[in-house]
Amino acid sequence: MAASGKIVIALDGMGGDRAPDMVVRGADIARQRYPDSTFLLFGDVARLQPLVDKTRWLKTACEIIAAPDVVTNDDKPTVALRKRKSSSMGMAIEAVASGDADCVVSAGNTGALLATATVGLRVLPGVRRPALCTFLPTTRGETAMLDLGANLQCDANNLVEFAVMGSVFAKSVLGIDTPTVGLLNVGAEEGKGSETLRDAAAMLRVEDSPVAFHGFVEGNDIGGGTVDVVVTDGFTGNVALKAIEGTARLYTGFVRQAFRTSTLAKLGYVLASSAWKKLGQRVDPRRYNGGVFLGLNGVCVKSHGGTDEIGFAYALGVAVDLVKYHFSDKVVEDLGRLRQALGEVPIAAADSAAGAG
Amino acid sequence: MAASGKIVIALDGMGGDRAPDMVVRGADIARQRYPDSTFLLFGDVARLQPLVDKTRWLKTACEIIAAPDVVTNDDKPTVALRKRKSSSMGMAIEAVASGDADCVVSAGNTGALLATATVGLRVLPGVRRPALCTFLPTTRGETAMLDLGANLQCDANNLVEFAVMGSVFAKSVLGIDTPTVGLLNVGAEEGKGSETLRDAAAMLRVEDSPVAFHGFVEGNDIGGGTVDVVVTDGFTGNVALKAIEGTARLYTGFVRQAFRTSTLAKLGYVLASSAWKKLGQRVDPRRYNGGVFLGLNGVCVKSHGGTDEIGFAYALGVAVDLVKYHFSDKVVEDLGRLRQALGEVPIAAADSAAGAG
Repeated sequence: MAASGKIVIALDGMGGDRAPDMVVRGADIARQRYPDSTFLLFGDVARLQPLVDKTRWLKTACEIIAAPDVVTNDDKPTVALRKRKSSSMGMAIEAVASGDADCVVSAGNTGALLATATVGLRVLPGVRRPALCTFLPTTRGETAMLDLGANLQCDANNLVEFAVMGSVFAKSVLGIDTPTVGLLNVGAEEGKGSETLRDAAAMLRVEDSPVAFHGFVEGNDIGGGTVDVVVTDGFTGNVALKAIEGTARLYTGFVRQAFRTSTLAKLGYVLASSAWKKLGQRVDPRRYNGGVFLGLNGVCVKSHGGTDEIGFAYALGVAVDLVKYHFSDKVVEDLGRLRQALGEVPIAAADSAAGAG
Repeated sequence: MAASGKIVIALDGMGGDRAPDMVVRGADIARQRYPDSTFLLFGDVARLQPLVDKTRWLKTACEIIAAPDVVTNDDKPTVALRKRKSSSMGMAIEAVASGDADCVVSAGNTGALLATATVGLRVLPGVRRPALCTFLPTTRGETAMLDLGANLQCDANNLVEFAVMGSVFAKSVLGIDTPTVGLLNVGAEEGKGSETLRDAAAMLRVEDSPVAFHGFVEGNDIGGGTVDVVVTDGFTGNVALKAIEGTARLYTGFVRQAFRTSTLAKLGYVLASSAWKKLGQRVDPRRYNGGVFLGLNGVCVKSHGGTDEIGFAYALGVAVDLVKYHFSDKVVEDLGRLRQALGEVPIAAADSAAGAG
């Protein structure tokens, strides 16, 4: 945060299916919610200026900065990296790297954002691999899950670092004092799963660990809210997240169809409309919009590409929470504590940066 | 099938949380549905005989055979294997191995059943590893998914064999003429995922393959019904299946809660009761009860341990479908066709049996 206490948010003005309109309107909502925030908006000035001029809250707190290039959804990460100094995405990340902004939010191409942010911001000292994290609705509230696809294969050290980062994420964004952390496995018993999982569990069970480790959890524990943080490799996490999204869509469709089967059912549907509205709010995917790249030297939030301004404003809220909580500092601190508990030598920053390449 | 056209079903009379009552009542329902079926019921005769005597359809088509031992839910596979010749589970499997029965159904301990069936029935010629398969509701109907946990790590050959077995499963149990098969991955593009997945995809794309290979699918494609068969390793499949079950439970709970929020909503709920009933039938977990161990030299169906007689009867229906379709013969045939298409030498039965240990 700037010394003034204001939070400066760098925005990729051109990222997302409905950009730039959605980005500007989402930032306007966020500016109303967080009056301490100011915005650096990167992109096509000719398109952005009239949109910003029409806003109610944003227009007095937003600087538009020209970015000649755009990262498209089809751009490979290598192409995005080449546009790093000229694209709206790359320049927004650069603003965080240079200290001009406290965080960056983009609804653009995920792979491009991950690659550009990793190169532009570098990984935090002590972190081998950054991870993609989000939170999901459960029967008890919300659960954070990581990694969601940044690292398809993970070793025990990666998983342990994800546990630390996920724990700090749950503290900062979900507001949980002592979040419990579970490792995703095919059974809860200690001997289950791969050697990697058992090694990671052994490390997390160490005395004086900064992580409240619950043990192994299974797929149904995600929606069941058994733990506050679910840690897994990027392949499994990606499949599980999408399987959950697909099932949510399936059930919503089933319920809707069921109420179309008879006139009485339709009447019942109308009478229950307030209930539907409440249900809709509870599982609104826009509320869960804000995949965060954890482990970078700066806060970087990825909004869904297809989101609207409401969803984008939620993603901005996640970024604000992380900045206010001093997320990165807390991760470095907790990683240091864990390494000390494990009797390990802290990993040098240079070493960890090389490891993330 | 016996020469008479009758199907002989071997039953583990003592397996399942509600056994033996549930087993006997489920078999009674199945006997009414499949009048060609007869039953060999293994277990405690003193407990089973009075239950069978009370049935309407089963009592004239059921032989009770004394089994002195029971495999408990806590028994390790090694313990279950030691009881192989004396337990209700082991003896039921043995009846299939000896040719006295066409299939075996058990609601007992999954790990014990897999181990005992693999040793007792042996794997099919040409199959390296048996896999656990089930089917799930989707927006378009039903999708089969395998492996669900029998093999936590899989190579490309394993996945290819799962694709063949899953395809024949969808033909026999789901009644689909040309089932499409997808490999579960983190993206649909050809270059995505691990080398193992890309190798398996390359093999499945061969000309004259007996499998209608769709390509890679993602987690949301399971509920979306994009393909008829989803193939994955046992770790990912287990996590995805349980994540889907957990989400289904979460949404059912959310809907129920939403309708309790106001009097109008409660009235709407009552008016829509027929719609709820239809929805309940559509997603009734009992309908999807019947995990099958594919790739063994004999049909072996695993019912959920906690199921009731309705669910157990569905599991019996899956077994009947597989026997009637000559599932094992078709798998051997299609594996041969695929190996020929790939220009490979067929794997000898002995070799494959050794590989499954």
